[in-house]
Amino acid sequence: MPENTFQGLPAAITSPPSREELAGRLADVQARMQSAELDFYVSFDPVNIYYLTNFANYVHERPFLLVIPRDGVPVMVAPLLETSHVRARARCDLEYATYFEYPAPPGDNWFDVYGALFKDGSSRVGVESALPIGIAERTPGRTVVVDIIDDVRLVKTAYEIGRNVHACQIVTLGHEKLLEICRPGVTEGVIHGSVSQLMMGRILADIPDANIMVCSARGMVWPPSISHDPHRIPRLSMPMEQGGPHVSIVAAQVDGYGVELERTFFLGTVPDWAHGPFQAMLEARALAFELARPGAVLSEIDVAVRELIARRGYGYGILHRTGHGMGITGHEAPFVALGDDRELEAGMLISIEPGIYLPDRGGFRHSDTVLVTEGACLSLTHAPDQLEDLTLGA
Amino acid sequence: MPENTFQGLPAAITSPPSREELAGRLADVQARMQSAELDFYVSFDPVNIYYLTNFANYVHERPFLLVIPRDGVPVMVAPLLETSHVRARARCDLEYATYFEYPAPPGDNWFDVYGALFKDGSSRVGVESALPIGIAERTPGRTVVVDIIDDVRLVKTAYEIGRNVHACQIVTLGHEKLLEICRPGVTEGVIHGSVSQLMMGRILADIPDANIMVCSARGMVWPPSISHDPHRIPRLSMPMEQGGPHVSIVAAQVDGYGVELERTFFLGTVPDWAHGPFQAMLEARALAFELARPGAVLSEIDVAVRELIARRGYGYGILHRTGHGMGITGHEAPFVALGDDRELEAGMLISIEPGIYLPDRGGFRHSDTVLVTEGACLSLTHAPDQLEDLTLGA
Repeated sequence: MPENTFQGLPAAITSPPSREELAGRLADVQARMQSAELDFYVSFDPVNIYYLTNFANYVHERPFLLVIPRDGVPVMVAPLLETSHVRARARCDLEYATYFEYPAPPGDNWFDVYGALFKDGSSRVGVESALPIGIAERTPGRTVVVDIIDDVRLVKTAYEIGRNVHACQIVTLGHEKLLEICRPGVTEGVIHGSVSQLMMGRILADIPDANIMVCSARGMVWPPSISHDPHRIPRLSMPMEQGGPHVSIVAAQVDGYGVELERTFFLGTVPDWAHGPFQAMLEARALAFELARPGAVLSEIDVAVRELIARRGYGYGILHRTGHGMGITGHEAPFVALGDDRELEAGMLISIEPGIYLPDRGGFRHSDTVLVTEGACLSLTHAPDQLEDLTLGA
Repeated sequence: MPENTFQGLPAAITSPPSREELAGRLADVQARMQSAELDFYVSFDPVNIYYLTNFANYVHERPFLLVIPRDGVPVMVAPLLETSHVRARARCDLEYATYFEYPAPPGDNWFDVYGALFKDGSSRVGVESALPIGIAERTPGRTVVVDIIDDVRLVKTAYEIGRNVHACQIVTLGHEKLLEICRPGVTEGVIHGSVSQLMMGRILADIPDANIMVCSARGMVWPPSISHDPHRIPRLSMPMEQGGPHVSIVAAQVDGYGVELERTFFLGTVPDWAHGPFQAMLEARALAFELARPGAVLSEIDVAVRELIARRGYGYGILHRTGHGMGITGHEAPFVALGDDRELEAGMLISIEPGIYLPDRGGFRHSDTVLVTEGACLSLTHAPDQLEDLTLGA
């Protein structure tokens, strides 16, 4: 796949996908359906539907379902109310199977329209593991749970990478702002408001026709009192504190492409005890960057990173895996984790973010959005990473 | 249920739910499990988990599952990384079954921890229709698809109504701002930015500890060029136009309670042709308000409203049902729709929003968030509804 072999940082792309781009994605799905001997594949996950069509829906009681035949044009099952919305955003060939409303009188419900698409009750139908059981039960034929579209999404096309490069410019900008305004006493609400607004403004300046259903931007800081607890959502009234470690999270979904940038930093002073875990985190991160090459087994990278952290004496502070994939969303397969025994490939996009969390003392984590290439992996996000540059207002 | 019988507008509530409130919700679920002879009930839907626990998660590859026994304390299956987050937000008794990561080595995955909770493979286990098939397949015992928590949510407690009353104050404020700034040439982006920011600011002023995972605020206008197409998401670069009909949508989820307020309005001038459909919409709306009483069959309200619109000559312009339920979310059961043959009950919270959409001319819809009481139903949202008050800047 020469289009995934990069000599340097690919150029940012802000335009919507071409019909050829989307046709290529569909062809890849249909080739896998052929191998798996599936007559149909049903997608419900709005992320997968967006990936194949450029149409974004949010999940509510009126279901959208994309029914893909092994050959030919997919059919979008959608409520009447939404069909012109689908037509306005979809950038691929689609047929439509429309139902009036949810609920509807007998014979006019979504499942009546949906069920009629499978001409023959003996079809072999692939369904996503995310398919709600209430929809699976209405699916005729022999269903097979298999995540084909998720598998296609693992390796990015050149177009996708260009979109993620642009999204990384947005979070890089947001993170600069965050480090600029984050000082003791400034509240979470002010940081969140300023950083999010700056990024959203830039997204809309770059992409005036951005689809707001797949746009979000968020900049937050875990101050030292909670930075040991990476998934505790900070309260907006929380003030930033003297010292550290503070941990930032700047994440965005930029017109459908998700990325993140995170840093551990200090305000004014660095406590003596914090030097050790900070340096151990930096070493773990450098090791992960070094190991992230095509052919590397994901779980083996995670093992090596954990072992390094344990050798430095902080094994008890490991709370999560080394990283996760990104692309359409900011959080998806593959996983740089024990249990994911797949190999990295050029064109995969992952976070590298080994963390150390010392109970009641604080957390240490940098995260970047990183492209795997045939050579060294490339960080698409940019921010200082060394302690001296991350001791602010000193 | 005397607590759902109101003499007037209930007072707004901004405080988090008490333990007694959440215990009452759980008791209601467990009583229904008893009737349905279920040993366990499994909830995956983040909205249902929030309803019972006050803990909000977003769905990603690390699943959260609430396993409710017929008697006793529910068990939260959660990733290690999140358990302190759950403890920080949950306001009810919970036991925890923690798994390390996703994915994980054999024996340590979420489904190992989850499967072990069902002591006996012959349990009868209720599951939501929203449960992903990939989780249903890992659920031991005999599974029965039944939406018990959704059913409990249909009739609101006095506490919930107080939260929705507050949320309606927020959208009422946002809608006032929207009508104030919406003039020809002003772009969608400016309206969305101003209205959303005002509402978010007020939410945080009223509830400094609001959980931002269940807060959102959005104010938009469908200008005349697209108002005939109610589910087309406007582009942020779109300017407002002279004349109309414009249709506003102001919606918010205020620390976990969702409501909406929408109006059809004109800028400067009202085209002659628009008087007829506007008045027909007003009549349809008045009829729905009149019929929304305890004991009324939901589908029969929708039939009567449709018939009125058809008698006025606009039957071809009906695109959607008369209304939908609200509560924790802004869009949920019950549905004022053909096919929903349940009866309204005091304490239900619905939108009343019959619409008329004339192809390529424009849309006509007001929507309010309305509480069903023993007497006349009460609109919790407030905005002008007559044509003369909705012709702005004339």
